[in-house]
Amino acid sequence: MADIRIAIVGYGNLGKSVEKLVKAQPDMSVAGVFSRRQSLDTDAQVWPVADFRKYVDEFDVAVLCLGSATDIPEQAPEFIRYANTVDTYDNHRDVPRHRAQMNEIARENGTVAIVSTGWDPGMFSLNRTMASAILPGAAQHTFWGPGLSQGHSDALRRIAGVHKAVQYTIPSPEALAAARRGEAGELTGKQAHLRRCFVVADEADRERIEHEIRTMPDYFVGYEVEVNFIDEATFDAEHTGMPHGGHVITAGDTGGFTETIEYTLELDRNPDFTAAVALAYSRAAHRLKEAGQSGAFTVLEVAPYLISPTPLEELVARDV
Amino acid sequence: MADIRIAIVGYGNLGKSVEKLVKAQPDMSVAGVFSRRQSLDTDAQVWPVADFRKYVDEFDVAVLCLGSATDIPEQAPEFIRYANTVDTYDNHRDVPRHRAQMNEIARENGTVAIVSTGWDPGMFSLNRTMASAILPGAAQHTFWGPGLSQGHSDALRRIAGVHKAVQYTIPSPEALAAARRGEAGELTGKQAHLRRCFVVADEADRERIEHEIRTMPDYFVGYEVEVNFIDEATFDAEHTGMPHGGHVITAGDTGGFTETIEYTLELDRNPDFTAAVALAYSRAAHRLKEAGQSGAFTVLEVAPYLISPTPLEELVARDV
Repeated sequence: MADIRIAIVGYGNLGKSVEKLVKAQPDMSVAGVFSRRQSLDTDAQVWPVADFRKYVDEFDVAVLCLGSATDIPEQAPEFIRYANTVDTYDNHRDVPRHRAQMNEIARENGTVAIVSTGWDPGMFSLNRTMASAILPGAAQHTFWGPGLSQGHSDALRRIAGVHKAVQYTIPSPEALAAARRGEAGELTGKQAHLRRCFVVADEADRERIEHEIRTMPDYFVGYEVEVNFIDEATFDAEHTGMPHGGHVITAGDTGGFTETIEYTLELDRNPDFTAAVALAYSRAAHRLKEAGQSGAFTVLEVAPYLISPTPLEELVARDV
Repeated sequence: MADIRIAIVGYGNLGKSVEKLVKAQPDMSVAGVFSRRQSLDTDAQVWPVADFRKYVDEFDVAVLCLGSATDIPEQAPEFIRYANTVDTYDNHRDVPRHRAQMNEIARENGTVAIVSTGWDPGMFSLNRTMASAILPGAAQHTFWGPGLSQGHSDALRRIAGVHKAVQYTIPSPEALAAARRGEAGELTGKQAHLRRCFVVADEADRERIEHEIRTMPDYFVGYEVEVNFIDEATFDAEHTGMPHGGHVITAGDTGGFTETIEYTLELDRNPDFTAAVALAYSRAAHRLKEAGQSGAFTVLEVAPYLISPTPLEELVARDV
């Protein structure tokens, strides 16, 4: 059977991870990389993203390795006119709108979009839905970290005078234990997590920067925040990895008995895992299209065996 | 929308759990209980299992709460002729044959069977398949316990002179830690678990019983086995619960980085959780049938949102 030909759209951390991980998949190959830049440090074919439409016969699925802030909302509805896409759109509140828009265009054009893959949204979404269905009325909590938050690190870096910065999100151990017992109640993300920042900045700017961090709405206000100013050498030595992970914990009562479902990710390199999930769902996108389907799907709508390279009969024998 | 009407076939621990948990589901009701016995301690309608065919208009899905040793292989192929079924068939090696047989009969009769639900097989199967698909080439290990093993406890109770007995399976902490680091290698179930037995027996029989336990093939030979003889009062006070659980741990390498996926269940009452999963998949069976499908499906083949009582649009907004 011919390989599933993957086009990578965007060549940042996620795009590079996708390129690397295609090699680990037994049934995929990289068709090319779409980029705004003309020269990239890759052996793959590089195509101008403006010519996306021209190259659609060269690949089966385009993995959109683009930012969720503006790139995906602006560009994905255009790409889906011409090719199957998989994205990692992570603006949770806007997923219903994005899915509806992609669905309409995909149906008109006979293409398949799988939206908001990755781990949250993505595998965590799947686990929230399944655990709630199995244990109706259960207490469910999502914890993030210990890990680097790209969004919060970007927010720090947008502050004037910040040279380098990272933010780690760390779940509270007490909150984790309470959630496993089904006793975490109406715990909010703010109570359950600490936000730990490491910032490189000139001495003169530090007081103002710390104030700006602590008063930044949505990102930091209401959280326990720790701000550490460090020198650049320490930053480069200790804070350039991209670890992340977290837990979805669901504790339900079955008449005096507690049943706890916990899904945990411990990731050395966040973009690698996000890319790995997007690639597995690229396989599903290709198969759905081959089966004559069209439209936009979330991970909730895809039968699990469709993401595996192993034939169904073998999976049933091996995993069930 | 009318409730999904559940028929319970068999009224042991699992059947009783299903009856209890239907009440927690917002869109289900118990239609009746099929049993060989004429009088059961239940408020539900009781029907003779021999008359299964007569009552098929009274319910939407039959949950087969029967043993996997002989009842399911003998009876499920008959039930599926007349009604949708969900079972918890747990003879792993025989699942492909069971699925194929149920699939053929279901297709001939326009019914839907979901086979081998529960947690292992069931949710653990699903996690094995998905984690392997996301992290190809990863090291994957399943650990069971700490928990009561019904099969091993039954095996103990079949030994002459054993009045009461339970067996707990306990994962080795060292093996768990190694699996999370992706360093557990070709660890077998025998290396990863301890089998702890509590037995009530007369003094005179104990030496022989312990010997019979330690030399019982498949069940105990090759495992680290601990045999504790205790008095009946201690047994009744401390060993009549049905805790269980376990872990599916998948650790993959993404080019020098370790990404670990762990799915953990911690269950106060094993049959309750098995029943909860079977009920969620009963919803899927009903929906697949309503959508015009027929055949046998494993959990790998069912799109996750189909097990949830919450409408898809709401799930996308809430969980993705």
